[in-house]
Amino acid sequence: MDDRSTTRRSFFGLAGGAALLCTIGGEEVEVSNSKGLEKADAVAARVRRPRAAAARDVPQIQPAPGGVRREYWIQAETARWDITPIKRDEWHGRKFPNRNGYRAYVYRQMTPGFAAPAGGINIPGPTLRAEVGDVLVVHFRNADRKLRQAVTMHPHGVKYNPEYDGAYMGDFTRAGGFIAPGETFTYQWECTPDSVGVWPYHDHGPNHTLNTFRGLFGALIVRPKGVKHPDVSYTVFAHQLPPPITGIQRNFQCLNGRAYAGNTPTLRSRVGQDVEINAFGMDSNFHTFHIHGHRWKDPAGTYVDNPAMGPNESVTARFVEDNPGRWLYHCHVFTHQDTGMAGWYVVDP
Amino acid sequence: MDDRSTTRRSFFGLAGGAALLCTIGGEEVEVSNSKGLEKADAVAARVRRPRAAAARDVPQIQPAPGGVRREYWIQAETARWDITPIKRDEWHGRKFPNRNGYRAYVYRQMTPGFAAPAGGINIPGPTLRAEVGDVLVVHFRNADRKLRQAVTMHPHGVKYNPEYDGAYMGDFTRAGGFIAPGETFTYQWECTPDSVGVWPYHDHGPNHTLNTFRGLFGALIVRPKGVKHPDVSYTVFAHQLPPPITGIQRNFQCLNGRAYAGNTPTLRSRVGQDVEINAFGMDSNFHTFHIHGHRWKDPAGTYVDNPAMGPNESVTARFVEDNPGRWLYHCHVFTHQDTGMAGWYVVDP
Amino acid sequence: MDDRSTTRRSFFGLAGGAALLCTIGGEEVEVSNSKGLEKADAVAARVRRPRAAAARDVPQIQPAPGGVRREYWIQAETARWDITPIKRDEWHGRKFPNRNGYRAYVYRQMTPGFAAPAGGINIPGPTLRAEVGDVLVVHFRNADRKLRQAVTMHPHGVKYNPEYDGAYMGDFTRAGGFIAPGETFTYQWECTPDSVGVWPYHDHGPNHTLNTFRGLFGALIVRPKGVKHPDVSYTVFAHQLPPPITGIQRNFQCLNGRAYAGNTPTLRSRVGQDVEINAFGMDSNFHTFHIHGHRWKDPAGTYVDNPAMGPNESVTARFVEDNPGRWLYHCHVFTHQDTGMAGWYVVDP
Repeated sequence: MDDRSTTRRSFFGLAGGAALLCTIGGEEVEVSNSKGLEKADAVAARVRRPRAAAARDVPQIQPAPGGVRREYWIQAETARWDITPIKRDEWHGRKFPNRNGYRAYVYRQMTPGFAAPAGGINIPGPTLRAEVGDVLVVHFRNADRKLRQAVTMHPHGVKYNPEYDGAYMGDFTRAGGFIAPGETFTYQWECTPDSVGVWPYHDHGPNHTLNTFRGLFGALIVRPKGVKHPDVSYTVFAHQLPPPITGIQRNFQCLNGRAYAGNTPTLRSRVGQDVEINAFGMDSNFHTFHIHGHRWKDPAGTYVDNPAMGPNESVTARFVEDNPGRWLYHCHVFTHQDTGMAGWYVVDP
Repeated sequence: MDDRSTTRRSFFGLAGGAALLCTIGGEEVEVSNSKGLEKADAVAARVRRPRAAAARDVPQIQPAPGGVRREYWIQAETARWDITPIKRDEWHGRKFPNRNGYRAYVYRQMTPGFAAPAGGINIPGPTLRAEVGDVLVVHFRNADRKLRQAVTMHPHGVKYNPEYDGAYMGDFTRAGGFIAPGETFTYQWECTPDSVGVWPYHDHGPNHTLNTFRGLFGALIVRPKGVKHPDVSYTVFAHQLPPPITGIQRNFQCLNGRAYAGNTPTLRSRVGQDVEINAFGMDSNFHTFHIHGHRWKDPAGTYVDNPAMGPNESVTARFVEDNPGRWLYHCHVFTHQDTGMAGWYVVDP
Repeated sequence: MDDRSTTRRSFFGLAGGAALLCTIGGEEVEVSNSKGLEKADAVAARVRRPRAAAARDVPQIQPAPGGVRREYWIQAETARWDITPIKRDEWHGRKFPNRNGYRAYVYRQMTPGFAAPAGGINIPGPTLRAEVGDVLVVHFRNADRKLRQAVTMHPHGVKYNPEYDGAYMGDFTRAGGFIAPGETFTYQWECTPDSVGVWPYHDHGPNHTLNTFRGLFGALIVRPKGVKHPDVSYTVFAHQLPPPITGIQRNFQCLNGRAYAGNTPTLRSRVGQDVEINAFGMDSNFHTFHIHGHRWKDPAGTYVDNPAMGPNESVTARFVEDNPGRWLYHCHVFTHQDTGMAGWYVVDP
């Protein structure tokens, strides 16, 4: 069980599609190993703030009548993260020699005013929740001191002024598209009627691909006002952690930054509960989301148990729980399912 | 036209994504050629029955009022299977030097009590059919004597007790998740109102990826009670047979275990018939299902002629036939279409 | 910034899935570089007209009551085409040493009777527009003098007689499936009620994969009679131009034959306009279509901002514009987005 051989390296590096080709600050950088990652970070650290991004007289967005401003404090920071913390695959019984740690980049929720962490380090970042008519107000701080590069928060689904797009666009970059280390910026995103849904947010700074792969992503959910909420709501991101990101000579097929059942999230519910599980693709691959023993209606009214999802697409499984037991859930791409992209869903009677 | 060169081997092995990485019984096995396959089989043969899987006091499932128990007898066996039986591609006229046979693993329908085969060896296995309210009762036998490993039947779409999940889950495996060579097990699956649809079933034993790739898959169709059935109904699985599975140094893009028009199923109908063609993805790739000269409504009400499908997803083309002629049907991934994933649909006036 | 190194070559050739395996005229040709392309063209030039394709007494198709015959004159020709005409990526500021030209194969719109070009060389070909009840009459000429091989036009969505399928089918090829150099053929396609939608057309001759990759594709739109048309309507094809097609040692992720923002189409609209953007996949990969700052209803009634699309599938973004600014639009497959598959959408107040 040698995880480090050159055979494995070429196997995962090429066949797994694990090499990343990135455009950063006017250069193209091939990131096929840790050295490539270092180079990419150095290039990203040299990207200067575009002039248009310097504006700070950004508009104040008011909620619609009846809506509120929902405030979050979130900071981006890098931290050690274990991909296989229990050092074991509970499905097949495989043991791992180590926890497979790497330097992750995460969105961490803070208490108001960035006073203190509101919780631990986690992949994905906090799930932002709002209703139609609200404004999501996200006070964002780039708190990382190691990588010396700008990052952002770019949301899907909500409506926003270009200042709050959170996307680096070179000369066309606006205020929210370049948050340098140590800086704070407040995003204001409108939850319009057509924002209803389950959406991802992620880094869209100058080094977005690598930093998103490192863990800078999360979910936001906008519901119609007054609608019944599910009793339990889970969020599962399907994504790979390839060698260039982790420095580990194998490709991990992950759910929420973890690989292999028992490490990946163990979802739980009870019979009778209104259950919602939101799944996303968050890498360069296409995935499916399958839960054993369950099926649900997709938006077109078809019963499904294994819908496909592309990068930054979401699917929602919503059902009233009626089937107690321990169930596998997994991506049904066979090569993903077998190398970590699976977990437990445990239903109590 | 040398099918065996090392150039080809690396081309298909790497670029085709044909190598398989499997987790089997606590080990990770790279399967990039026949030797890897042998190793995987040896590892799978050593997997012991988990304790929880020994239970035999499994529940008896009763049909809903008006429903019936629909019984099938199916056995898993390995057999020689030809990928290109006519040694020719009828589309482009290409000739093959041989039939490209390999050891397949198939679900074979038997007469009641496993008295005798109910038909020949086939990929996919028999299509199971039921209506809402029924219980699908599948008497399953692992009849293979060569590979000495447990297999199962895991269904999608239907509702089942954990004993009937048909999934190996290590220490958590239940009765139906480990059917050793020579053993028989009776699955009982409920066809609830939300089971309506076209679903796959497949092996989910300890060596599921390789055995599913070898051919252990089929379809099950649950219809609402009393609904009009189509006049003709076809099932088409899109999947690859890569070198490690076949021992042949090229990757075959298959429909129902066959590659290239004339070998793949030739579908037939007549003008005026109510036609249903159910297509599935059944490998680690995403596919589309295109029929020339035809289009149909998808579940959202949009007319389509080439919908996408992920692994273990199905799409259904249903239409009243109005266009006589000989038509190509194929996956529209260009590299799949060109290397076997195409066939004929012949409509008589 | 060396685009030509062997490292890059193997990187793009293998990891990018850029090699093409084609079946042409009874042979299988590996096309992994310019030499392979030459060989494929030589093989394609030797394909003889199938006997059944010689028929010229093809049926005349009449429009439904109230419909009309909509005539187009289109010729296939090869021409030099620049992938990065402005030699710069306006998003990340990267400069290119050259325009990255290659020999493209395009559908060019002509004035009636092929009297003169109706416009310049373009990828994609002209968008064909019709209403339900109409017959699309496409006078097609294979005007290329260099590649000496048959090409066709194969449409999706519309209804057609086998003579007008536009698909080479070996011995079963009909009249419209083999248009040799210098020949002209008139396709007649019915726009039936179930043809409503946005569809691709493309080459389906003996060398269809390579010629489609070279640029032989376009869109056709069929609307219900009398329906409101959008104020602006754009068509965007997501596809790669890999080394074997271009002879350039890198893989371009393109939109309409161009790579990197500023080269790819800059879409424009004004606040208040009814905007339609139709996006297609047109290679062997799956893509998504994301527009910053916007969302729209998909056919199932779900709000989306990043739907997936397979090869030759389309998705339509339709919305009333309400968000002025400069926005990125891109495929959300990270490796595609970073290597060219992105552009600007500019909304005037």
